[in-house]
Amino acid sequence: MKNHFYGRDIVSIKEFDNEDLDFLFKSTDKVRNMQQSEKRELARGRILGYLFFEPSTRTRLSFEAAMASIGGISIGIADVKSSSLEKGESLADTVRVIDQYSDVIVLRNPLDGSGRFAAEVAEKPVINAGSGTEEHPTQAMLDLYTIWKEKGRIDGLKIGIVGDLKYGRTVYSLLYGLTNYDVEIHLVAPPLLKIRKESIYEVEGKIRIHEHEVLNDILNELDVVYVTRIQRERFPDVQEYEKVKGSYVIDSKVLENTKSDLIVMHPLPRLDEVSHDVDNTPKAKYFEQVSYGKDVRATLLALILNEKF
Amino acid sequence: MKNHFYGRDIVSIKEFDNEDLDFLFKSTDKVRNMQQSEKRELARGRILGYLFFEPSTRTRLSFEAAMASIGGISIGIADVKSSSLEKGESLADTVRVIDQYSDVIVLRNPLDGSGRFAAEVAEKPVINAGSGTEEHPTQAMLDLYTIWKEKGRIDGLKIGIVGDLKYGRTVYSLLYGLTNYDVEIHLVAPPLLKIRKESIYEVEGKIRIHEHEVLNDILNELDVVYVTRIQRERFPDVQEYEKVKGSYVIDSKVLENTKSDLIVMHPLPRLDEVSHDVDNTPKAKYFEQVSYGKDVRATLLALILNEKF
Amino acid sequence: MKNHFYGRDIVSIKEFDNEDLDFLFKSTDKVRNMQQSEKRELARGRILGYLFFEPSTRTRLSFEAAMASIGGISIGIADVKSSSLEKGESLADTVRVIDQYSDVIVLRNPLDGSGRFAAEVAEKPVINAGSGTEEHPTQAMLDLYTIWKEKGRIDGLKIGIVGDLKYGRTVYSLLYGLTNYDVEIHLVAPPLLKIRKESIYEVEGKIRIHEHEVLNDILNELDVVYVTRIQRERFPDVQEYEKVKGSYVIDSKVLENTKSDLIVMHPLPRLDEVSHDVDNTPKAKYFEQVSYGKDVRATLLALILNEKF
Repeated sequence: MKNHFYGRDIVSIKEFDNEDLDFLFKSTDKVRNMQQSEKRELARGRILGYLFFEPSTRTRLSFEAAMASIGGISIGIADVKSSSLEKGESLADTVRVIDQYSDVIVLRNPLDGSGRFAAEVAEKPVINAGSGTEEHPTQAMLDLYTIWKEKGRIDGLKIGIVGDLKYGRTVYSLLYGLTNYDVEIHLVAPPLLKIRKESIYEVEGKIRIHEHEVLNDILNELDVVYVTRIQRERFPDVQEYEKVKGSYVIDSKVLENTKSDLIVMHPLPRLDEVSHDVDNTPKAKYFEQVSYGKDVRATLLALILNEKF
Repeated sequence: MKNHFYGRDIVSIKEFDNEDLDFLFKSTDKVRNMQQSEKRELARGRILGYLFFEPSTRTRLSFEAAMASIGGISIGIADVKSSSLEKGESLADTVRVIDQYSDVIVLRNPLDGSGRFAAEVAEKPVINAGSGTEEHPTQAMLDLYTIWKEKGRIDGLKIGIVGDLKYGRTVYSLLYGLTNYDVEIHLVAPPLLKIRKESIYEVEGKIRIHEHEVLNDILNELDVVYVTRIQRERFPDVQEYEKVKGSYVIDSKVLENTKSDLIVMHPLPRLDEVSHDVDNTPKAKYFEQVSYGKDVRATLLALILNEKF
Repeated sequence: MKNHFYGRDIVSIKEFDNEDLDFLFKSTDKVRNMQQSEKRELARGRILGYLFFEPSTRTRLSFEAAMASIGGISIGIADVKSSSLEKGESLADTVRVIDQYSDVIVLRNPLDGSGRFAAEVAEKPVINAGSGTEEHPTQAMLDLYTIWKEKGRIDGLKIGIVGDLKYGRTVYSLLYGLTNYDVEIHLVAPPLLKIRKESIYEVEGKIRIHEHEVLNDILNELDVVYVTRIQRERFPDVQEYEKVKGSYVIDSKVLENTKSDLIVMHPLPRLDEVSHDVDNTPKAKYFEQVSYGKDVRATLLALILNEKF
């Protein structure tokens, strides 16, 4: 199949269809099976330049590890705001400077549309590593790959997404990505943290979505449960928080009545919404998710940098 | 030609003559034309150790990108002051430690003479990446290369340097470097930000310098205009600043009456002293300057590290 | 000899016997004598992931330089506390994340036992780069290698350890390491900063230890003097500090009456406890110690990563 990723900007998960994702996943399998020496040639001598306007140690390390695993080098700014980059310089100029140093650019910026803007300004391909409230395409790709890999397929699955659905960029990107598949989605959140309907109206036409307030109403039917953190700060009232908190916690007891091949995912960091006693059960897949993340990003970088793959 | 840069400290631009610079520029062209695989051998397995006592993200990234492009690795401290390097350790000791880890050292330090001192203390070659009020030799080298490359020569050119000429380390190094050529210099600055005469008395005997307060008096005669930022903080009185500010702004309208092959340079970051509507004109060369900067530094590193080149 | 370091955690110096250390030292000599090209294969394409919960620029740079010298790459977090790693994540989770990205993990954490804990959580080998009040095994290894290399042996030597013996993690690890040898130890410290007896009760049964308050009482008999910094903050009373300070300073005059082949070591940074006029004497070995440190760590990494060595 033709490599549609070559030289391409990765701005929004919405720009990738079922076929693109399938190609990415199969390519990831291919990269995972490569000899070290072959793998290291994929980005030998190539430079990834990163600009994190919003620090994210985890995402940065994942990209650095990915780039290193295919033989490339990463340079950049882990925290543009607190760097010596003079205040007042435009985003366009900062991007144009890193553009001169890099073969591919990784950008995180809190503003909606910043990924698109950077992609237009830069000559080199730009990967959006999180922008605004909704877009984090590589996180969605690695989430989907984890499901595909662990369940053998995505079509036909019942997928629960639990926790803070209102403020999580990750959740929106995952939902957009899931519209490429025939899945049944169950959103589970307290009233205050329900999904923003205006943000997913495109999604609603394409996949079946059910909303719940209580996890137990649906957990035993699910094939995948994707847990996100509920931040206390979101609640105007601590009592309100304490009231709902417990009902979204997954521990080994809660898992007893679930499907035997259920998988539990989490974008990390987790606090107590997934109990540590789940870690050693075969259902826990959140650390595998981290590892797959590195591989998906390595493959994406390799596809962007190499026409023939 | 013999490689006079091999194993050499790069402390001051004053130590390099016309022949040295010519060799550096031609070597840079050679490196730019190398195959990736050949280029990567120039610093394969070599380590650049950097110490930035004064943070400068731009200069650090330029050196890291340069070193990576020739196959080497950079390690170091991006902000010595806020690092865990214990307060009270002497500069000599800090330099001696990095000396044990590196094949070449890159140092930025606010003190005059710190580059020279480090070069004497270290066994490995030291590149001064900015010291005190006047020295930033690699910036001058890349500025000169940009002119040489874009204009085909340096001799015979009329070069304007505009903006804050009093406090800009870059400007002094550039002027020293230009004394190797037969050029006519036009310095354009408001009275408060005029060049420090005592700092360039050596320069004045060697090249023709004219001073102006109004850019329009001379702009249409120039082959090169090198713009620097005017910082509001330099003015005791905001009104004073507002009064002069506009007269040093370059926009596409101002460029209308200039030579067709004028080039506009800027060490970046720029605020509004060069308008964004200039960016897409063929006269704008400040992003090329960034790119050339990486190549000049890569070549300098390669020359320092390899006797035969 | 079999490589007992392959795949092994390096948590405590107490876990390494005379034979292990001898193997490490001889392997270090072997690595030092390798061709660059051969050396670079030892960690080619391998990733060191570091987590510094307590920043230590020196130790981090030493490991990065070591890893680079054998062809590997380092990624990680130089200051976990001030990083964007969300507060509240467990050490276990942070370690498990870096575990997915790395072939070997380097951890520094202020808590006693953290090194052991991380080693149990991680699948990849963990190197303790300083934990709690006593453990810094690679520092002890490089200190011992420095003695072995500079004196040709460790057995039979009279070794003085001077300065703040109460709070220095380095000192405890060195003492534990020295129990593998037939040495005579002289501890020299002011009363307030004497060694914590409860921490070295294991040591006392194995090697002869003498305590002194005045350096001159013993200096002329020593083969090795290992100096550490006395921090003013440790004294409740400045006058108390001023009183003792001078008696622990080593300068070229103090060295006049010492053995001709005495070596002076220091873990750095030093303030004025070793005078700069000592630096150019053949007795000064603290910068060699830095350089050996890189080589010992490179070798340790190579042994951990390569079964056949």
